[in-house]
Amino acid sequence: MKTTLALPPLIARKRDGGALGDGEIRALIDGAARGTIPDYQLAALLMAIVWRGLTNRELVTWTRAMVDSGERLEWSSLPGPTVDKHSTGGVGDKISLCLAPLCAAAGLYVPMMAGRALGHTGGTLDKLETIPGFRTALSPAEFRRVLTRAGFVLAGQSARLAPADRVLYALRDATATVESIPLIASSILSKKIAEGAGALVMDVKVGSGAFLPARSQARALAGALIDLGRRLGLRVRAVLSNMDQPLGLAIGNAVEVREAIDVLRGGGPPDVRALTVSLGAEMLVLGGVTRDLRAGARRIEEAIASGAGLDRLRLGVGLQGGDVRAIDDPGRLPHARHTQVLHAPRTGVVTHVDAGALGRAATLLGVGRLRKEDRISPGAAILLHAKAGAPVGRGDTLCTIHYDDAARARAARSLAEAAFRIGSAAPRARPLVLETLG
Amino acid sequence: MKTTLALPPLIARKRDGGALGDGEIRALIDGAARGTIPDYQLAALLMAIVWRGLTNRELVTWTRAMVDSGERLEWSSLPGPTVDKHSTGGVGDKISLCLAPLCAAAGLYVPMMAGRALGHTGGTLDKLETIPGFRTALSPAEFRRVLTRAGFVLAGQSARLAPADRVLYALRDATATVESIPLIASSILSKKIAEGAGALVMDVKVGSGAFLPARSQARALAGALIDLGRRLGLRVRAVLSNMDQPLGLAIGNAVEVREAIDVLRGGGPPDVRALTVSLGAEMLVLGGVTRDLRAGARRIEEAIASGAGLDRLRLGVGLQGGDVRAIDDPGRLPHARHTQVLHAPRTGVVTHVDAGALGRAATLLGVGRLRKEDRISPGAAILLHAKAGAPVGRGDTLCTIHYDDAARARAARSLAEAAFRIGSAAPRARPLVLETLG
Repeated sequence: MKTTLALPPLIARKRDGGALGDGEIRALIDGAARGTIPDYQLAALLMAIVWRGLTNRELVTWTRAMVDSGERLEWSSLPGPTVDKHSTGGVGDKISLCLAPLCAAAGLYVPMMAGRALGHTGGTLDKLETIPGFRTALSPAEFRRVLTRAGFVLAGQSARLAPADRVLYALRDATATVESIPLIASSILSKKIAEGAGALVMDVKVGSGAFLPARSQARALAGALIDLGRRLGLRVRAVLSNMDQPLGLAIGNAVEVREAIDVLRGGGPPDVRALTVSLGAEMLVLGGVTRDLRAGARRIEEAIASGAGLDRLRLGVGLQGGDVRAIDDPGRLPHARHTQVLHAPRTGVVTHVDAGALGRAATLLGVGRLRKEDRISPGAAILLHAKAGAPVGRGDTLCTIHYDDAARARAARSLAEAAFRIGSAAPRARPLVLETLG
Repeated sequence: MKTTLALPPLIARKRDGGALGDGEIRALIDGAARGTIPDYQLAALLMAIVWRGLTNRELVTWTRAMVDSGERLEWSSLPGPTVDKHSTGGVGDKISLCLAPLCAAAGLYVPMMAGRALGHTGGTLDKLETIPGFRTALSPAEFRRVLTRAGFVLAGQSARLAPADRVLYALRDATATVESIPLIASSILSKKIAEGAGALVMDVKVGSGAFLPARSQARALAGALIDLGRRLGLRVRAVLSNMDQPLGLAIGNAVEVREAIDVLRGGGPPDVRALTVSLGAEMLVLGGVTRDLRAGARRIEEAIASGAGLDRLRLGVGLQGGDVRAIDDPGRLPHARHTQVLHAPRTGVVTHVDAGALGRAATLLGVGRLRKEDRISPGAAILLHAKAGAPVGRGDTLCTIHYDDAARARAARSLAEAAFRIGSAAPRARPLVLETLG
């Protein structure tokens, strides 16, 4: 169905609130993937879509066309169900590193394609690459081999899957047209469908450290993902989780690998462990491994207690070329050269630890990237000593900043200082999981 | 004030309904004119402006920056006031050809920069170029010389005036972002200010043959032009005129020159003459030549009756290299090779002659262009024999199609047939000038 598209009338129709036809959308996505449609016309159309939205039918056709723009993986020969988890991105979010091996130990296959840090949110690939030798760019054959043997694989997005999404995403990033619920839903699900996942648990973050801070927006995205998944035959469950303060105590690349290992060893911060168990239970139920969430949670807890999750992590890391000794001796992971401490300016109770501000502080340190071409600093980190609700005395340590470059540390420090609020009364506790949909 | 602009946050601000700062707008327009801002970012921003609009302050800064992107003409050495007229474009609209020489004869200087046919509306330059030898591409010195001697000049838009508008207009045309009242107002006024006009009469068309068919939209554009003109020190009067049916009886390039000459000779269709007189009266009052519209209308009528307008046309055409004999012997203008006649299918009264449909039919014949690179056919035409209110008998001629290419004529004919509606009762007469603002 190759036609020459006259773009201006089509852009005008969307601009005026009309709908695009199936053939038009297919030709559009095909043209975007092949580079035959000028960027400026795509950009105007994307802004019109941010404005006017997409109908359900448009969205289904758009997403299918993105899937059809590339290869599609297929896992029916595996002896168990494939279930993936995807997060909208947060600060200190190392859940994938714990969750994938634990779910694999519990009987799922987790074909996880992860992203890199950009803006104030961290990236799973950057974290994993602090393990010496670990490779995230896998061939299709390697991807299949690791998944089959370890039960999970954590790799970069293949350029062969949904290439139209790659083109459109780069353009959206440069034109402030990322912020559209249907376009976000379509971008996520097209990649998950192309990846061959049988079901998906979405961790939609809410709060200052989230991509969509407002709960109403997070709920709208969750609803769109569930609805679009249903129309495309992909079961989606969405968990809205709190990202007002960072997850766990570690923000950084190597330090988050270490914290994830702590959780797999049965330790680690309670919130990281709790969210891992909740999301794991959802995945096990979606995959049909357990009948209900309680049984699912138990299976995840068992995989922690028995060390089966840690074994899977060792296996997967080894299969992807990583130095397995770093799992048992995290001292082998990179460290920053210097540290400095942030002290509490007065006695009281920590009422808020702002995830967005700490994410931006960490990015300045080199944990993340301001621009795609920036290099990350694997050992840079902010380690929290107090989170919301903790009583502190004047001069107590609020956090430690791990850095290589003093100028960067200075810039990060003032942002980090502003992230901590200290009051006289303990704040009302907010649940970690706000609601579950789908 | 050269700064490196980070476009995505600026696009995001406009997308979310915020305003751009003066320095940002200046850097933006400067970058657009120099080609240092990627087209796709400008396109997304333009669509966000179509969506969210511009504040008065943004619009003033935007327009000033467009003027400042190029040269600015200056006419204070002329012994009389400069007043221009601009139309939003219609079908059969040859008013400029009558109006400019008549106003010159009445004491104004009219530095008119006109456009080409695009879409279903005609272009003054294409019409003038049917006069053998007539040149519309004038150097600044030629432009000044013709204006000074003839009292009017009808030339193409100089690339040196408001070059940012040229870049943005081409991009808007390709991205369906033309339809924004503030962007239209800014595009028109930036060119008129750069051209050095002291005052401007806007002919804003309303109806099926107009760029903005709805009266509410036409009124909004008129209001925006008047308001923006006031903020920029350019007096603007706006006349809303009816474009439900074509102006006059001739639609085409050479035939419209002929019809304009008929008006200057004291003949021609009453609606063309009436609108010429109305707009001329407005121009004379704006320029301070007459105290009121009645006196202004009288001066225009006198310039017709005395032949002074026709003399000025001869003078101007000669100064621009045109064959003056074509003015006195319009048989020297190009003709199409063939004609065919459209007959009334039944007896009754013509209730409607659809300007939009006839404009599209004429474009198919080669009167206008579907794409910028299309060549026009100077002799192609539709000549009306009946307009709304005329009684017709079955088989009477409704219009004559003048064409060079039979295949084009066939396509145009069915559109032209559908443009005529015949009923049993005469339609309610609509005034030609609907209202005047400013």
